[in-house]
Amino acid sequence: MSNIPTTQTAAVVPFHGADLEIRNDHPVRQPSELAPGECLIKLYCTGVCHTDLHASHDDWPLHATTPLVGGHEGVGEVVAIGANTGECPVKIGDRVGIKWLAYSCLNCEQCRNGREQNCPKAKLSGFSVDGTFAQYTVSYVYHVTPIPNNLDSSAAASILCAGVTVYRALKYSGAKIGEWVVLPGAGGGLGHLAIQYAVNMGLRVVAIDTGLEKKNLCLELGAEKWIDFQQEKDIVQAVRDACDGEGAHCAVVTTASPSGYTQAVDYLRPGGTLMAVGLPGEAKLEASIFFTVFKSINILGSYVGNRQDAVEALEIASRGKVVVKYECKGLSDPQRVSRLRWSGHTADTIHSVYDALAQGKVAGRIVLEMPK
Amino acid sequence: MSNIPTTQTAAVVPFHGADLEIRNDHPVRQPSELAPGECLIKLYCTGVCHTDLHASHDDWPLHATTPLVGGHEGVGEVVAIGANTGECPVKIGDRVGIKWLAYSCLNCEQCRNGREQNCPKAKLSGFSVDGTFAQYTVSYVYHVTPIPNNLDSSAAASILCAGVTVYRALKYSGAKIGEWVVLPGAGGGLGHLAIQYAVNMGLRVVAIDTGLEKKNLCLELGAEKWIDFQQEKDIVQAVRDACDGEGAHCAVVTTASPSGYTQAVDYLRPGGTLMAVGLPGEAKLEASIFFTVFKSINILGSYVGNRQDAVEALEIASRGKVVVKYECKGLSDPQRVSRLRWSGHTADTIHSVYDALAQGKVAGRIVLEMPK
Amino acid sequence: MSNIPTTQTAAVVPFHGADLEIRNDHPVRQPSELAPGECLIKLYCTGVCHTDLHASHDDWPLHATTPLVGGHEGVGEVVAIGANTGECPVKIGDRVGIKWLAYSCLNCEQCRNGREQNCPKAKLSGFSVDGTFAQYTVSYVYHVTPIPNNLDSSAAASILCAGVTVYRALKYSGAKIGEWVVLPGAGGGLGHLAIQYAVNMGLRVVAIDTGLEKKNLCLELGAEKWIDFQQEKDIVQAVRDACDGEGAHCAVVTTASPSGYTQAVDYLRPGGTLMAVGLPGEAKLEASIFFTVFKSINILGSYVGNRQDAVEALEIASRGKVVVKYECKGLSDPQRVSRLRWSGHTADTIHSVYDALAQGKVAGRIVLEMPK
Amino acid sequence: MSNIPTTQTAAVVPFHGADLEIRNDHPVRQPSELAPGECLIKLYCTGVCHTDLHASHDDWPLHATTPLVGGHEGVGEVVAIGANTGECPVKIGDRVGIKWLAYSCLNCEQCRNGREQNCPKAKLSGFSVDGTFAQYTVSYVYHVTPIPNNLDSSAAASILCAGVTVYRALKYSGAKIGEWVVLPGAGGGLGHLAIQYAVNMGLRVVAIDTGLEKKNLCLELGAEKWIDFQQEKDIVQAVRDACDGEGAHCAVVTTASPSGYTQAVDYLRPGGTLMAVGLPGEAKLEASIFFTVFKSINILGSYVGNRQDAVEALEIASRGKVVVKYECKGLSDPQRVSRLRWSGHTADTIHSVYDALAQGKVAGRIVLEMPK
Repeated sequence: MSNIPTTQTAAVVPFHGADLEIRNDHPVRQPSELAPGECLIKLYCTGVCHTDLHASHDDWPLHATTPLVGGHEGVGEVVAIGANTGECPVKIGDRVGIKWLAYSCLNCEQCRNGREQNCPKAKLSGFSVDGTFAQYTVSYVYHVTPIPNNLDSSAAASILCAGVTVYRALKYSGAKIGEWVVLPGAGGGLGHLAIQYAVNMGLRVVAIDTGLEKKNLCLELGAEKWIDFQQEKDIVQAVRDACDGEGAHCAVVTTASPSGYTQAVDYLRPGGTLMAVGLPGEAKLEASIFFTVFKSINILGSYVGNRQDAVEALEIASRGKVVVKYECKGLSDPQRVSRLRWSGHTADTIHSVYDALAQGKVAGRIVLEMPK
Repeated sequence: MSNIPTTQTAAVVPFHGADLEIRNDHPVRQPSELAPGECLIKLYCTGVCHTDLHASHDDWPLHATTPLVGGHEGVGEVVAIGANTGECPVKIGDRVGIKWLAYSCLNCEQCRNGREQNCPKAKLSGFSVDGTFAQYTVSYVYHVTPIPNNLDSSAAASILCAGVTVYRALKYSGAKIGEWVVLPGAGGGLGHLAIQYAVNMGLRVVAIDTGLEKKNLCLELGAEKWIDFQQEKDIVQAVRDACDGEGAHCAVVTTASPSGYTQAVDYLRPGGTLMAVGLPGEAKLEASIFFTVFKSINILGSYVGNRQDAVEALEIASRGKVVVKYECKGLSDPQRVSRLRWSGHTADTIHSVYDALAQGKVAGRIVLEMPK
Repeated sequence: MSNIPTTQTAAVVPFHGADLEIRNDHPVRQPSELAPGECLIKLYCTGVCHTDLHASHDDWPLHATTPLVGGHEGVGEVVAIGANTGECPVKIGDRVGIKWLAYSCLNCEQCRNGREQNCPKAKLSGFSVDGTFAQYTVSYVYHVTPIPNNLDSSAAASILCAGVTVYRALKYSGAKIGEWVVLPGAGGGLGHLAIQYAVNMGLRVVAIDTGLEKKNLCLELGAEKWIDFQQEKDIVQAVRDACDGEGAHCAVVTTASPSGYTQAVDYLRPGGTLMAVGLPGEAKLEASIFFTVFKSINILGSYVGNRQDAVEALEIASRGKVVVKYECKGLSDPQRVSRLRWSGHTADTIHSVYDALAQGKVAGRIVLEMPK
Repeated sequence: MSNIPTTQTAAVVPFHGADLEIRNDHPVRQPSELAPGECLIKLYCTGVCHTDLHASHDDWPLHATTPLVGGHEGVGEVVAIGANTGECPVKIGDRVGIKWLAYSCLNCEQCRNGREQNCPKAKLSGFSVDGTFAQYTVSYVYHVTPIPNNLDSSAAASILCAGVTVYRALKYSGAKIGEWVVLPGAGGGLGHLAIQYAVNMGLRVVAIDTGLEKKNLCLELGAEKWIDFQQEKDIVQAVRDACDGEGAHCAVVTTASPSGYTQAVDYLRPGGTLMAVGLPGEAKLEASIFFTVFKSINILGSYVGNRQDAVEALEIASRGKVVVKYECKGLSDPQRVSRLRWSGHTADTIHSVYDALAQGKVAGRIVLEMPK
């Protein structure tokens, strides 16, 4: 343990509304400071998620703690475990993942019923506790997720939030083999993983997104139909046509705009299910009550995933069934970081990655590698 | 069969937007005119439902056929069956009920999956085919519902729409013994039946409505908590407080206003389920997407019920577990009918019943008896 | 209609326990003799199922009608529809399938709940009504199954019983993507289809059968693990080892011997599900009550499939996801038929096909073509 | 804490097959000896369960640890909590219950899926760890069950195993309002609680047991039909007749004999569900495979309950919906204890209680009070 440094490089949001700052002198919690049940993780890499923008922009009805190290798709190695942890499911040296849900009490009504993400005592990585945009972070032995051997860390990072979220939505949708599922934003970070999980479950995918690059990606990954939302004038009719003229059985809506919800109620066939996954700050569902009732539509809120969802999503990916399309960048490399709006000093590139995410221009996922 | 008259008294909507007219010379389809699978029912009585207002006012996105005999909560006797019907589940003399869903094809994807009410070929009593505001009506041998012996016809009439609708909503909600269910409009036609079905399933009921009469009714029927929406300033907080401080597990929202939906998402506990039952013409759900997702809320459209739901709802009532509070009136008695807006000639009383329904002033249900 | 012959070639069981006889003068029900709801099908081909042996051997607790035309996996063309059928889902010329469940009333409690195969009025092809070992047979317009265009008739025939049966078992098992399913008899008529449906649902298959031909077939079709029950001494341990050392999540047991059931309870992991599909005449479950309870094991009886199951199973196959391995023979060709024990005159070859089935030697399915 | 004694009175099984011995010098684990996550409970009382006989008689396929303090239906007070327990859901002075499942890891696949009782690391009170036939016992802060204020300790004790077990079986059976449930052994410790939970869920109960005392108890508690298994010659037919002539929807079989299972498959209606709850040492299911499949019967192993089941079962009882019929005795009072076979020295009374349980003569439950 003697080789744990006392300071590290980390990306910190100093206060609400402020830009991320790369700090090289951020303190590292030392092993002796860990409470029972906590563990110290030396991170290899971390994904960047749309949710990180919300935490940073403070545009949600809930507010992040500050100052805060963001990030919630980290993969690293257990380097210390809090004394007196007792029965412990991980050991020093294990490769583990950190997801949005860093901690839940495992004892309340929500946890007992398996909805760990709805635990009133939940701690959220990069939101209510320090996250993964750092070389070291503290997490919780019962909630870190073991990474299967044959899955590389960068791929695993993206599965831990984007993958788990869409996997759970599909799992709980009740959609079954041979049914049509619509994926708005199919070419993005969540969408391209959703296509693959869906195809592996035997679902037939209607991909909605825009641009040739995303079209090609979606079709390669197994989508059966493609709708370009910038070219298609009547998306509702186009989806219905694509799905035997009767509409889709399911939609996984990850987008922030209310129109995604309104449209889904219209293009689903009777009895269909809309999985609501995206977390926009202010938007209302705005779907027609009349048709929600008349068509027996189900709208199910699906919020990230619990530990079991994470294990399953990773296991499936580890067998090569789901391939993550990602681009690696470096956390502390000034030239690369500057493109992540993580420094006030490189104003011209600062908006690039977050802006790319905000504008839906990232095909796949971006993963940041930690300085060694 | 020789005693089937050729004309009858019936309440007819002559064209869209027109008032109902009581006609004494409305034709009766004769037994020889019945197609295979059709049957002629001599009606004893019929309930009056909020949906009849929509059909009459033509304020839905779907439009009723006209001219039209309204009504879809009828009980009567089979007096003729179409020739060549083949295997037939009813026989002359059987007491049967007619519900909103008069017919479905029993062969399409929706029917095969038990969602008969979503059949593309569905025929709707008092909406797309003539209904029960008449002495005789034509229905379908596979869809009329046998009435259990120990249930009086007037009670059965109200169960056939109001009862079936709330029963199905509760049945499909997943709510289970010991859980809290909120019933906005608990003192009304649907609500007072919902209380009883819920209590019989072991659910704990929070009744929301207004006025002392409705309060007393709700508490007598087994509601555990009462909230008067005119007196209570913060309904969301009041419901949460009533439900262990954590919110309700379920809400059955029969009301037309969007606020009922918005509030429900707020007062449900995480993982809770909103059963959307009411069919307002224009309203949008308007619930927060953020909290629908973040709280893992389920919003399930529940549209009337299928044949099995009707059988079950009636069976439970026939054992005395659900008592219908209703007031009997006559269909053709001018003095009584005048109060039902069914005649253009008695303008001062014409709005009373429909207005009472529209204003939520009917505690329980109104049932009309047919002229013998 | 004038070209419907009055006699035909058919394979008939004259009385209980007797061998099938090929008759060339079996009467054809004429169009004018059809009741409403019945239709006459000119058959192209029919599968041969293990159940046909039971009907023929009369070794079930239920007894077939005699004299009887056997067979329940037929594909053919609608050539006549009973007069006065009314609303009719098929028309003359449609290519349709006939499955084990020829008819259900569509109105009883079982039918209303979608368990059409448990209808007390169910009629069973080749068991309680004449089946598909004939050039013409009578079936029911609400129960014949439309065959998708891009599926050949011989393949469709095998899907109609073997395919539907295993598809429904998998569908109702609750097994989901990434879980292990064990298929005893994986190389046989039901098993080789079960592998493919399972793989398409994202399940991981442990195939149990014997011999190199079946091994190769199973692995080609996507089974991940292979266990030869004649070579493997401890099947229970072998399955556990194959499934992460923890046992399988699901087993679809199509075999007749009680050991298949006893073993499954032992090799399933806690919470696992045994789908009981085979219909042996006398056998008892003989599984340990203690371990069924202690391990929270589910044993679910799954009996053929309903109309929706048939539509889904065919649709999936029609997209090339499930390929039927079958061998075509002729119904009336003496040399070929003789091998099917369908004639008392060719004693030396008569046992070959039925014996092959009885001994588990048929890899895939045998389909009989009708004389033109 | 200074008032924790070092020795106590406890009933100990010294080795497999030996009788219980009452010892007055059994050691008490001291607070300083507790591991993180453990707590010391001062017991008020404990139920006696049929399972205790199995542990004592060593007639299961699994074997209890010895020497062993038996018992797994205890209620008492938290008097100490292991140092360094961290976040702790209970505090000193809380009244809590100890159930069969004393501990599960909360992190394995089974625990993550809510099947805590199937955790490979599960510890079982009175079986693999010391139980509740003692003044003090050690349990686990995450698994002790808070007792609602308005439920007396003796009643709560019986709910903790007998109540939870039947409650979970009913909860997972899928049986719903208006359906028939058969309860063999309805007048016993589990059965009389099952009647009440079932009635509160709206189920209609067919009680099977024997004798006038049990008949009266069952009918008072809400059973609708009574069958005396010693007087009724054809139980299967009697149940079918009781259930509309069509058989029951559900049976909760708590008995040890295979005939309970064989009969249930016969008297259930198609689609019915047999909840297997009893844990006989050797018996086989012995139900007909043919009819399990042909009737689409579900046989579900239901093993005690998890934490959530326990909370729910207690909550329902605490509102007076379920009343425990129990008789109080004393643990260490020689005259009373002698009747519990807990001493080798009082041979004439020693078999009375265990024998009464073994012979099914205990109507309701026996609860032992601890010496103060």
